[in-house]
Amino acid sequence: MQEIVAQPLTKGAFAPFGDVIETAGAELRLINNGTTQRFHDIANIETDADGKVIASIFRGQPFELPVEIKMMERHPFGSQAFIPMHRRPWLAVVAQDENGRPGRPQAFLVKPNESGVRGVNYARNVWHHPLISLEVESDFLVIDRDGPGGNLEEYFYPEAWSVSAE
Amino acid sequence: MQEIVAQPLTKGAFAPFGDVIETAGAELRLINNGTTQRFHDIANIETDADGKVIASIFRGQPFELPVEIKMMERHPFGSQAFIPMHRRPWLAVVAQDENGRPGRPQAFLVKPNESGVRGVNYARNVWHHPLISLEVESDFLVIDRDGPGGNLEEYFYPEAWSVSAE
Repeated sequence: MQEIVAQPLTKGAFAPFGDVIETAGAELRLINNGTTQRFHDIANIETDADGKVIASIFRGQPFELPVEIKMMERHPFGSQAFIPMHRRPWLAVVAQDENGRPGRPQAFLVKPNESGVRGVNYARNVWHHPLISLEVESDFLVIDRDGPGGNLEEYFYPEAWSVSAE
Repeated sequence: MQEIVAQPLTKGAFAPFGDVIETAGAELRLINNGTTQRFHDIANIETDADGKVIASIFRGQPFELPVEIKMMERHPFGSQAFIPMHRRPWLAVVAQDENGRPGRPQAFLVKPNESGVRGVNYARNVWHHPLISLEVESDFLVIDRDGPGGNLEEYFYPEAWSVSAE
């Protein structure tokens, strides 16, 4: 199995795949008579005209490192955002498209930092691995698209990849 | 000042005002080869045709109990959901409409329970108080509507209300 080491999540490294959902670098508006900072519109939430944006909670079983990556999926009709409802690390695994198939996976270790809890938004049609919680069963708020049509494409690699984190 | 005691948040008590965002009672789908439970479409996310659904982070300064409620607001063009990115309690204060003005406030103490972190979604045009964090500065993922037009209506009570929690 080929080995992949997860990188720390940064806006720049993740830009080809979607958005990092975090306060750092976001447009800040002071609202509610000064009692609230609004970090405004921090993810490109997308749906097709026939679909609608919905909110769900995903409760993920924990994976153990190293994680075997056997497949990837993507959603042609909308984006999919994952926001942890906790402060534990988790793994986001994505890949560039290569002629309709995912290329070599890239893994990001997503951790809260001094700016707070962080999530990611996979852009429409970006290859990614299903949710990878770590340590314990973990809840995520998910913003994605519901509606008619087949919004799931899967690809199984001929050989699995092994993802570790430092 | 008239006093109001916050009630525990339940789906039934909150139903006139919107949705409780929680796993309990939600439609459950097992996905991702059995590694994830998807609690599907747990809030009625609404926007008008000219608007779009966006995600933001609200960072709220903590209030001290009892909290003085001087005003309420509502959003005529869309819903507004608040999902804590933490496990601390917070206050949701809402009111029924009475001829275009908010009536007597109702307060809900929102706490995580054995099912996990919980949030609320204020339905379109429901009177509510701006974010009330408790204890320490706290981040919330907010799903609401962006777009043209005046999506904020405010009302200031002639006399403030005092909200305490047990």
